[in-house]
Amino acid sequence: MITLHHCVSARSFRPLWTLEEIGVPYELKMLPFPPRVCARPFLDINPLGTVPAFFDGAVRMTESVAICQYLAARFSSGHLDVALHEPDFGTYLNYLHFGEATLTFPQTLILRYVRFEAPERRQPQVAEDYSKWFLARLRTLEPLLAEQEFLCTQRFTAADISVGYALLLAQHLGLHQRFTPSVQAYWQRLQNRQGYQRAMAAQRGAANAQGVSAVPAPDTR
Amino acid sequence: MITLHHCVSARSFRPLWTLEEIGVPYELKMLPFPPRVCARPFLDINPLGTVPAFFDGAVRMTESVAICQYLAARFSSGHLDVALHEPDFGTYLNYLHFGEATLTFPQTLILRYVRFEAPERRQPQVAEDYSKWFLARLRTLEPLLAEQEFLCTQRFTAADISVGYALLLAQHLGLHQRFTPSVQAYWQRLQNRQGYQRAMAAQRGAANAQGVSAVPAPDTR
Repeated sequence: MITLHHCVSARSFRPLWTLEEIGVPYELKMLPFPPRVCARPFLDINPLGTVPAFFDGAVRMTESVAICQYLAARFSSGHLDVALHEPDFGTYLNYLHFGEATLTFPQTLILRYVRFEAPERRQPQVAEDYSKWFLARLRTLEPLLAEQEFLCTQRFTAADISVGYALLLAQHLGLHQRFTPSVQAYWQRLQNRQGYQRAMAAQRGAANAQGVSAVPAPDTR
Repeated sequence: MITLHHCVSARSFRPLWTLEEIGVPYELKMLPFPPRVCARPFLDINPLGTVPAFFDGAVRMTESVAICQYLAARFSSGHLDVALHEPDFGTYLNYLHFGEATLTFPQTLILRYVRFEAPERRQPQVAEDYSKWFLARLRTLEPLLAEQEFLCTQRFTAADISVGYALLLAQHLGLHQRFTPSVQAYWQRLQNRQGYQRAMAAQRGAANAQGVSAVPAPDTR
């Protein structure tokens, strides 16, 4: 049995989205944000205090993109995964990492130093530095997405979920108004997917049922 | 033929180390740091302006950990890779991502706001915030490394290269003095490896031969 610990709109949305794309059964445990402050017993489940925390039998994982890759390889019958023998194997791995290391982490700095820190500790310069940083790197996808529907191998894969979450986070931060046209169209395509919409409904339903605020809390670091 | 574009001690050290562990032939092209400022024609090779830039025939990659995973899967005959059918497959993927998203990115903020920015733009608070952030997350490895020689599957894998680079960067920043005992011993084991030492020698030799400063320039973002 798969269990996913999740905060609304946090990085753990990536594995939730992957689970809904594949259609594998799972239990969703909602946490208030940030869990390391608002749900102290969670530290016994994940000493990092972060979401996602993911369990599949003896398998225990905490890195959102790694979980997507795991689920895709293990349960998607090759649909969401790209195999070693396919020409886009390297491109697939690259975009899995690009979505987190290059597109998500810079945005968490904006969240921290604009929204979550106490007023006297806010750092507008850091937020501006990393908004520019994010948008410059995102722009490099424009020529690719002008030609292709998805990032690699002519089908939707876990790499699109990795990058798609970065676009969701950018929307929460208001940065989507600065997306280039093909990136904007790609983001719309992703949101139109039934798997994405089922994941959104699952998080809303679980938040209501478990009495956790459904206000987006995108950063869990 | 494999080509790797690299700056001394940058994230591109990860694929260099992997290449030397496997023993596959490659061409190493050294760049001054930061390449997007000091080597403008490099932007035609990689529009992101970052290293690594990696080419294997038609395969083109820019994310250091993704390249390690690619090389391990493609060329290491299973030694550095963990296959889907092995019990530690999920743990392997998790530590590959953990080394970058959780352990490396926070350190690049310290570099940026303590060393690379002009004095009037430096941010000691940010450096302190992310030093604490890094060390708190690194500490979660202590119980594991007190019991195990490597991160997963009882052998050295690309996941150790991902995390090992974060420890190298921490050493450049002087944070290694705050490593816990088992993490310190693990870091020593990694440095004792012949593959690590060959990679260090290869970067030194190529920097000298190509007239690029061998002063460490760990951040390329």
